[in-house]
Amino acid sequence: MNILAIDASGLAASAAVLSEGVIKAEFFVCNKLTHSETLMPMVDQVIKASGLLLSDMDAIAVTEGPGSFTGLRIGSATAKGLAEAAGKKLVGIPTVDALARNLTGFEGNIVPLMDARRNETYTGIYTLSEDDSLIVLREQCAVPLSDILEDVNKRGRRTVFLGDGVKVFEEQIRHECRVSFLFSGANNRLQRASGVAVLAEQYIMEGKGVDASLHVPVYLRVSQAERERALAGNK
Amino acid sequence: MNILAIDASGLAASAAVLSEGVIKAEFFVCNKLTHSETLMPMVDQVIKASGLLLSDMDAIAVTEGPGSFTGLRIGSATAKGLAEAAGKKLVGIPTVDALARNLTGFEGNIVPLMDARRNETYTGIYTLSEDDSLIVLREQCAVPLSDILEDVNKRGRRTVFLGDGVKVFEEQIRHECRVSFLFSGANNRLQRASGVAVLAEQYIMEGKGVDASLHVPVYLRVSQAERERALAGNK
Repeated sequence: MNILAIDASGLAASAAVLSEGVIKAEFFVCNKLTHSETLMPMVDQVIKASGLLLSDMDAIAVTEGPGSFTGLRIGSATAKGLAEAAGKKLVGIPTVDALARNLTGFEGNIVPLMDARRNETYTGIYTLSEDDSLIVLREQCAVPLSDILEDVNKRGRRTVFLGDGVKVFEEQIRHECRVSFLFSGANNRLQRASGVAVLAEQYIMEGKGVDASLHVPVYLRVSQAERERALAGNK
Repeated sequence: MNILAIDASGLAASAAVLSEGVIKAEFFVCNKLTHSETLMPMVDQVIKASGLLLSDMDAIAVTEGPGSFTGLRIGSATAKGLAEAAGKKLVGIPTVDALARNLTGFEGNIVPLMDARRNETYTGIYTLSEDDSLIVLREQCAVPLSDILEDVNKRGRRTVFLGDGVKVFEEQIRHECRVSFLFSGANNRLQRASGVAVLAEQYIMEGKGVDASLHVPVYLRVSQAERERALAGNK
């Protein structure tokens, strides 16, 4: 199976090609560049470097959200454009699931933390099966950090935190987390297209691909513009 | 600390920039391309994408071996050239250590397996400390697979195997491994410059950087040409 995977959900953007169980190419950039300018050239480069063509792909995978609203729209638009043009299935991957997939063989709970601003985090709770499949214990959600830490403490298992939220919430975690915990290394810290591709392979085998025309980003919250419009309407 | 990391030790080649604990850019290709043609353009691209200059780097890190003899020479020559030109320290990272660094938080033993041909594997045994530092239990070596599996069985801990050797040795592992084991996912399977960079940061803090002029690849075995010369000399 050949999968082109794209992520533009956060500060970083990346593209990768997975072919017959091997990551053939990945380009990852985390430098506050505008994804609208950098994403398509990265996609072109990984396809070229993989030795495959867009027409060789069985599916296009993209982090469907949550994340930066603009980033998600860029990622989704890019993936939809490619999938529709090439007549391929599109697989939307929950961003927090993709983050959790950075880990291999971890025996406790995996808790990705994305900085969602407004004192919240996009997070969830995951674990890995004996054969390293990803198991969702708590689906991705937008909550205050204290909410997820309370859940982590109740579950009582060793926990690894990762994601761009680690930097933001590190002090609070050190104060409030009552279970043994660690932070992932820098090479496993942020969402990456290679993890998206690996998870997409699992989801496709579970029949989760959709027509590109049906794909929509998953924001988990309303946008600032919508909040402001709602507020204005209430005045 | 800013680190430019390079790997050309195996089938894949990659380059990455780590800056202040964040992977700013990484380009990874595993497509049997000739590293001599692809490595320098990849290095140029990750430096550019990172928003930094070569002169901003505190060190250049490279997988010093073992691996493909030609690949190691290309990686070392590239890293030495860059380090000497820019007056930077060079950090040689044992390839098998770099592979082990792909994992975060794994509680058993980590056993990278590189296909060394001639019925051997470049391997070693590692574990992670409570705070996720890499601990070498058995230094990298070139041995028959049965030798390392015997050691793994004796140690009796859950084990994760990774590296390009997994594909080659999978059946033998399934037959001879007596402890609970798993194979890493495709996104954590091969050596990557991002893992090299993270490990380099640890090694630099331990004072392990050297002058570029002192760096030499670590082959662990003599090359085919040297074996043939020795054989011819004995005739």
